[in-house]
Amino acid sequence: MPVLLTLDQAPKLHQLLAQANNAGLDCQLVDNELPEPHIQGVGSLTSAGPAEISFLSNPKLQDQLLTCSAAAVIMTPQAHASLVGTQIGFHVVLCSQPYLMYALLAQWFDQHRLQALPTGIHPTAYIHPSAVLEDGVSVGPFCVVEADVRIGKGTRLGPSCIIGAGSQLGRDGLLHARVTLYHRVTIGDRVILHTGCVLGADGFGFAPDPRQTAGAWAKIAQLGGVLIGDDVEIGANTTVDRGALGDTVLSNGVKLDNQIMVGHNVQIGEHSAAAACVGIAGSTVIGKRCTLGGAAMLSGHLELCDDVHVSGGTAITASIRKPGRYTGVYPFAEHIQWQRNAAVLSQMAQLRRRLRTIEKNETSD
Amino acid sequence: MPVLLTLDQAPKLHQLLAQANNAGLDCQLVDNELPEPHIQGVGSLTSAGPAEISFLSNPKLQDQLLTCSAAAVIMTPQAHASLVGTQIGFHVVLCSQPYLMYALLAQWFDQHRLQALPTGIHPTAYIHPSAVLEDGVSVGPFCVVEADVRIGKGTRLGPSCIIGAGSQLGRDGLLHARVTLYHRVTIGDRVILHTGCVLGADGFGFAPDPRQTAGAWAKIAQLGGVLIGDDVEIGANTTVDRGALGDTVLSNGVKLDNQIMVGHNVQIGEHSAAAACVGIAGSTVIGKRCTLGGAAMLSGHLELCDDVHVSGGTAITASIRKPGRYTGVYPFAEHIQWQRNAAVLSQMAQLRRRLRTIEKNETSD
Amino acid sequence: MPVLLTLDQAPKLHQLLAQANNAGLDCQLVDNELPEPHIQGVGSLTSAGPAEISFLSNPKLQDQLLTCSAAAVIMTPQAHASLVGTQIGFHVVLCSQPYLMYALLAQWFDQHRLQALPTGIHPTAYIHPSAVLEDGVSVGPFCVVEADVRIGKGTRLGPSCIIGAGSQLGRDGLLHARVTLYHRVTIGDRVILHTGCVLGADGFGFAPDPRQTAGAWAKIAQLGGVLIGDDVEIGANTTVDRGALGDTVLSNGVKLDNQIMVGHNVQIGEHSAAAACVGIAGSTVIGKRCTLGGAAMLSGHLELCDDVHVSGGTAITASIRKPGRYTGVYPFAEHIQWQRNAAVLSQMAQLRRRLRTIEKNETSD
Repeated sequence: MPVLLTLDQAPKLHQLLAQANNAGLDCQLVDNELPEPHIQGVGSLTSAGPAEISFLSNPKLQDQLLTCSAAAVIMTPQAHASLVGTQIGFHVVLCSQPYLMYALLAQWFDQHRLQALPTGIHPTAYIHPSAVLEDGVSVGPFCVVEADVRIGKGTRLGPSCIIGAGSQLGRDGLLHARVTLYHRVTIGDRVILHTGCVLGADGFGFAPDPRQTAGAWAKIAQLGGVLIGDDVEIGANTTVDRGALGDTVLSNGVKLDNQIMVGHNVQIGEHSAAAACVGIAGSTVIGKRCTLGGAAMLSGHLELCDDVHVSGGTAITASIRKPGRYTGVYPFAEHIQWQRNAAVLSQMAQLRRRLRTIEKNETSD
Repeated sequence: MPVLLTLDQAPKLHQLLAQANNAGLDCQLVDNELPEPHIQGVGSLTSAGPAEISFLSNPKLQDQLLTCSAAAVIMTPQAHASLVGTQIGFHVVLCSQPYLMYALLAQWFDQHRLQALPTGIHPTAYIHPSAVLEDGVSVGPFCVVEADVRIGKGTRLGPSCIIGAGSQLGRDGLLHARVTLYHRVTIGDRVILHTGCVLGADGFGFAPDPRQTAGAWAKIAQLGGVLIGDDVEIGANTTVDRGALGDTVLSNGVKLDNQIMVGHNVQIGEHSAAAACVGIAGSTVIGKRCTLGGAAMLSGHLELCDDVHVSGGTAITASIRKPGRYTGVYPFAEHIQWQRNAAVLSQMAQLRRRLRTIEKNETSD
Repeated sequence: MPVLLTLDQAPKLHQLLAQANNAGLDCQLVDNELPEPHIQGVGSLTSAGPAEISFLSNPKLQDQLLTCSAAAVIMTPQAHASLVGTQIGFHVVLCSQPYLMYALLAQWFDQHRLQALPTGIHPTAYIHPSAVLEDGVSVGPFCVVEADVRIGKGTRLGPSCIIGAGSQLGRDGLLHARVTLYHRVTIGDRVILHTGCVLGADGFGFAPDPRQTAGAWAKIAQLGGVLIGDDVEIGANTTVDRGALGDTVLSNGVKLDNQIMVGHNVQIGEHSAAAACVGIAGSTVIGKRCTLGGAAMLSGHLELCDDVHVSGGTAITASIRKPGRYTGVYPFAEHIQWQRNAAVLSQMAQLRRRLRTIEKNETSD
């Protein structure tokens, strides 16, 4: 595990707990006779060393506590109760939500790295004179900020970002290297965009144009934009196309992993999240708090209501109006077994007919 | 909907129809007593305001005409006939192909934005002395144009494009930001390439090399190129690999959406189109006027004849020699129902055997 | 086929065989009375001309020898034996592994191009003063090399590469244009990285944070790194996320095609290879010498033992502990036939029940 801070920089355990952004969390250090450690980083139960804090969020991993070398472990009061009589060599931090507490501590440690990032406008960046950069905006080498762009206070652009004409970025955003926004893309506050993501490319729209030759296509210019809410995170090499006439919309708190494709005019509701390699075809509307497993694919012009959970690898080809989990994955098997079973798949309708015939015969017997 | 032009710039309705590239289209303004509006943009039937033009191409949306606030609506003579006696507050433009007419009008409005893009060679671009740029070529900031490149008249490169040594681009092309061509990629006229697309990376070719260790691979250097026809459009973050020995070929009029992978030595016929997230493995040959739905996957070394339409999410694992639509998607269901049904899938062959046994018994009864 | 060398540069056939890196291969030129040709390039059996060498590795293509115009053809002694009495117009190179021999010759020809690539540090590159570049490192235009980076001897960076703070690259690597490494990514020797690949972006980790609103997520900062072994090749637009606490690991000799997603904490064993569009979810561990077909998808937290081969388009949702080939692809069909059969899929459990009922009745008869 990486040691994140030198011993000099590392806070004492109680200082760490006090400094992390854990407002609203019940978070309490259990008294014991161990000396109070300095905490240099975070580790898993099996990897954390004596200068690191760890956490137990999955009850199945409770046995790992027995050999854990961490300086301290975050756990629920229930988990702690079940340790009665067990000899442990670490401090215990009680918290009803250890996984959230771990997230907040990891954020705290990462802030040290983030605060050391270069600031200011790099001299090689090209910024159009009409662009407005609020206070504390950082722009990395070889960035291009086009005409009429506005970038909110404290937002940081890594190297080689391109912000298209008329785009608007909110405050305290973090654009990693090589993020590209086409023209007229609007982004809220505290948004994180990863390398290679592309917001606002043309949606895929063509009209058959028989005036040319059979099969030829006329491009439908995409006149809409992209609208991204606050606290959105978008992964590496993900693409969100601009709308044909209206906007493509990602609401507040949406989280998209890498290599995702969001088609034109799609709308995604608040706090919905999609794992990597998901594809969402044009004009589909997704409700709030939905989750899409990796490589799930949604056809166009569908509606998913709030609280729908799609399993990885599932193709959704019709609207879903009832919350719940939906799945459609072909179960894998050893190849030869798959071959035998798959061969029957092309005879399913016939098979059912044969079954019906037998049933009728039985009844008529 | 975005207002695209100020009132000053906006043409009167009949001027707009005269200026758009609608040669060959039957396009006729129906006389009425409404004042003639200036048209500032295009909108959908539900969103267009009194300075916008809209269109009715899907008969199912006809009811939206009743509440439509657009200045004018393009529709077929049939649709218009069915409006007899209905009170409407917009001008009617008769056209046998309203969707194509909409495409052409959207192009016309977008031309205003495109014409305002920066022109000329940006001083930060690096252009090798041996490169030849014809008249009217624009090159954005931080572009790299390597040795022996030729770029045709009027072609525009957005910021940070990279054109590899010996590549050739035709006329009137539009490369958005961060397009990358490896060496020796050849591209026709009027081609549109979106951000992050990569043409000419090495195909995935390795020979088992037992001289090293068991399982080791020797790279097969990819000596071919990429050949792209006229009027091709390629979406954001799509990759088209170079051929192993010959070229990977995209014929005239091919349209590829975002995040598509085209393997080495693939050939795609004229006017074929692929939606996002499609993968086409090496050496597969696709005919003319084919369409591949989103996330369709084609195995390598296949042949698809002309006019094949593959549904989204379908894996094509054998050649197709008959035009038509092909599908292979596992139907999704509520998770618990899927679990019950999927469990039977691994017993299909057995199930069929049991059915046969019963049928035999019946016959022998 | 491209002619790779001018006649002046082209070696005689025996010189070519002597110069290629074929140590350890049995490679023998069969005597004949044809004049010895200069070899300018490599071609397939059907495309190679009289200045090119070709190879026969697939016995099914043996008939192509009859009309082959190549200067020379590499083939096995067995294939040669079966030619007895056939009139051929090319030199024969005997080798027990013609495909490997072809790979080595293609490498030899490509070296000429690679050696002509620009060298040195391009004046537009931005290199942090604390970065250490060993001898013979090349850095292309608009590259960014951040603080505390180390780049090993002979490694070449194409245009617009970004090497994040603290990253380490080994020797003799080749980074094509626009490769991005986040901070603290470690890479071995002789690694090839293609355009648009992104190593070290944040893994997709969020903890539910009810302190905000229902459904809201707290980011789990990703504190681990990425560790890439020797002789790894990674394709265009592929992403490998950094670990949450530990590292994401690609072992020696791993080959990844384009558009692949490797989630955080994944480990891939030596010489395993994945074709394009594969997705591997977080914390999955893949053994040695595995192959993943195109668009295969692996769920998170799985283990695949050594020598597992996953067919293209297959979703792996459980660990695999036995070497072999595994498949789970829905067989495609004409759309109408698929519709009929797929409809039955949602009644599988019911169908089995009906069959059981009949079987019971039969028994009780």
